[in-house]
Amino acid sequence: MAKLVGRAIIGQSGGPTSVINQSVVGLVQEAVKHDEITAVYGARHGVQGIMDEEFIDLAKESKETLEAVANTPSAGLGTVRLKPGEKECEKIFGVCRKHDVRYFFYIGGDDSAKAAGIINGMANAANYDLRVMHVPKTVDNDLEVNDHSPGYGSAARFVASAHVGENQENRAMPGIKINVMMGRNAGWLTAASVLARKEEDDGPHLVYLPERNFDRVKFLLDVRAVYEKLGRCMIAVSEGIHDAKGGLVTTSKEQDSFGHSQLSGTGFLGDYLAEIIKETFLEDLGYPKIRVRADTYGYLQRCFPSCISPVDAKEAREVGIAAVREATSGNVDGSMTIKRVATGANYAVEYERVGFEAVVGKTQTVPDKYISADGNNVLDSFKEYAMPLIGELPKVGTFVGYPV
Amino acid sequence: MAKLVGRAIIGQSGGPTSVINQSVVGLVQEAVKHDEITAVYGARHGVQGIMDEEFIDLAKESKETLEAVANTPSAGLGTVRLKPGEKECEKIFGVCRKHDVRYFFYIGGDDSAKAAGIINGMANAANYDLRVMHVPKTVDNDLEVNDHSPGYGSAARFVASAHVGENQENRAMPGIKINVMMGRNAGWLTAASVLARKEEDDGPHLVYLPERNFDRVKFLLDVRAVYEKLGRCMIAVSEGIHDAKGGLVTTSKEQDSFGHSQLSGTGFLGDYLAEIIKETFLEDLGYPKIRVRADTYGYLQRCFPSCISPVDAKEAREVGIAAVREATSGNVDGSMTIKRVATGANYAVEYERVGFEAVVGKTQTVPDKYISADGNNVLDSFKEYAMPLIGELPKVGTFVGYPV
Repeated sequence: MAKLVGRAIIGQSGGPTSVINQSVVGLVQEAVKHDEITAVYGARHGVQGIMDEEFIDLAKESKETLEAVANTPSAGLGTVRLKPGEKECEKIFGVCRKHDVRYFFYIGGDDSAKAAGIINGMANAANYDLRVMHVPKTVDNDLEVNDHSPGYGSAARFVASAHVGENQENRAMPGIKINVMMGRNAGWLTAASVLARKEEDDGPHLVYLPERNFDRVKFLLDVRAVYEKLGRCMIAVSEGIHDAKGGLVTTSKEQDSFGHSQLSGTGFLGDYLAEIIKETFLEDLGYPKIRVRADTYGYLQRCFPSCISPVDAKEAREVGIAAVREATSGNVDGSMTIKRVATGANYAVEYERVGFEAVVGKTQTVPDKYISADGNNVLDSFKEYAMPLIGELPKVGTFVGYPV
Repeated sequence: MAKLVGRAIIGQSGGPTSVINQSVVGLVQEAVKHDEITAVYGARHGVQGIMDEEFIDLAKESKETLEAVANTPSAGLGTVRLKPGEKECEKIFGVCRKHDVRYFFYIGGDDSAKAAGIINGMANAANYDLRVMHVPKTVDNDLEVNDHSPGYGSAARFVASAHVGENQENRAMPGIKINVMMGRNAGWLTAASVLARKEEDDGPHLVYLPERNFDRVKFLLDVRAVYEKLGRCMIAVSEGIHDAKGGLVTTSKEQDSFGHSQLSGTGFLGDYLAEIIKETFLEDLGYPKIRVRADTYGYLQRCFPSCISPVDAKEAREVGIAAVREATSGNVDGSMTIKRVATGANYAVEYERVGFEAVVGKTQTVPDKYISADGNNVLDSFKEYAMPLIGELPKVGTFVGYPV
């Protein structure tokens, strides 16, 4: 079969992560090895840059620059929160034709896979040979088929590292502490809060995911039970927790450009939960004044440079490389995925292409097996899944406490 | 002069930090070298543990345990937010007498220095020979006399590191981003947000400290001016910003045990500032929908284990050692302070004892020389002061961006 000759476009989409630049660099370093790829365009701000024909020549970037960018969080090409419709996709496809683009690599979540699928369909309908590959990325870890998604390991490492300190702090100054993590429909990042637990009484003691309905009364009883037992209580909550009717527990008024209610970038939920604990504990449960505090980890989770998971960085690079190899292997299109082929000390992954439809419009949630029967905690068995993804956590020392 | 023979008590007080355990370990490792110190008691939860006679024998802890604890954030002995009054101090002094305690080391901020001073006064009045030393600690960096306080360097490193990522993120996905840092009366931690700036247009672009009055209208005009120029705007704000009458811009209802309004552990201020920007920009300034987000760094700043400043850790250890040397050098009491004797590449400090009154009831604020004339930014000259305290920051790579 004759090789498909033409230009390549690389774009980044959706929320930045600590390792999405690794995928760009993996794509570039592999693309330049293939003669049939005649140029490697980087689109500024994803599909927006394609529509505006704002490209940079990534093949001209030095090895040093590429490595430096790879190790930098956020999206070096710029990113965009735009869900392109039929009209935008036509424009994008038109630009691809105009520039003789034959390879289109789009790094993002399932909305990006959807856009890639639409554009691929247009190329097919027009009999224009275009290899379209979606490269996975999301700190939320909710892409279907994938064992896990690039970006998650580093964000989970941030959450777990933070909880190493949080647990020490809650011990040193007992009280009730609520931490709100990202995760609209899937509780993967919130679940990562348990990765730092070692001792029986280490926090978080309660973990609420969007995978279970949230009940305010049950919540308050849970908190009281932990507080009565330990004299302190650490609570990890997903921003997307909702009641039995599916209504969010509390939201700000704003909707983002995808039509979702704004959850991140506001301390609303944490403040609300702290407030109902304070009111209930003080007024109904007759407790003395207890220190109740809430932190919302917000965007810190996804681009904190001192906390990148080495495994996550490596895999994000490799999935980019694999995407180019796949696209140049024949007349194929689709979404690259990560498959775990061994775990524990032998942890290893492979990269496989699936059809766009396998990931589009789907959400991979935290499986039941990791959630406590009561729905208010994440089981320690989750560590087997997640620890290989985040790397080693900071070690903690405590006094033996010899009596005087 | 005969050596003063008796036991020592070490206590930790106030908010935990990433390096307060270094000071405990410095105190222990030096104390056990002095024959006249017959035992080294660690008080659980500061003065509370003294009153309750809850002590552990720190001299029995192994070198390995001490080193492990030293490298662990938060307060290994437990801490307390209690401002002991006359009655509590009498009780504390009584316990000291009962246990033949002759050396009392209290690690904390200026409230702890005050408590130490009261107890010292009681010992003097009773003709009981007690060496009382306050060892400095505060992420807020607001202790008088001190060039800087142990705990600040690591918290500032967290803020600066976070802003390395924040700046990349705001570039990749332009919008208005507000970050709220700790600091009730002094803006040191908020000022640290500028340490990551390198390029002309790097954020934060606006920095508001409690050292200047905050004016909502001026704020909105500032934000508009930056947004019109750069198409994005990063804002760093201290939790303690206040208007010209001294009123906080917004607070939650709660007061902490010191009678202060609660500022940390709530996203209230950030949400409020985001809200007034959204309303003004949309309704009065005629802008299209702009992405406005706020994060409150909260307690993450002070105990994040992956982001400890090596210099901060070293100095926190050394000031503990110096406190014991000072206390065993003669009939002296007071507060240990850090004095910078050289800066830049030759950065060096010395530890000096001052009287309690030199630090009690005072707040060292960010000097005028570091604040822009307009009061809405921190000058780059601040880097000369702060960079030696935080260690190297993560490096950032950006594409050159060759045209296609």
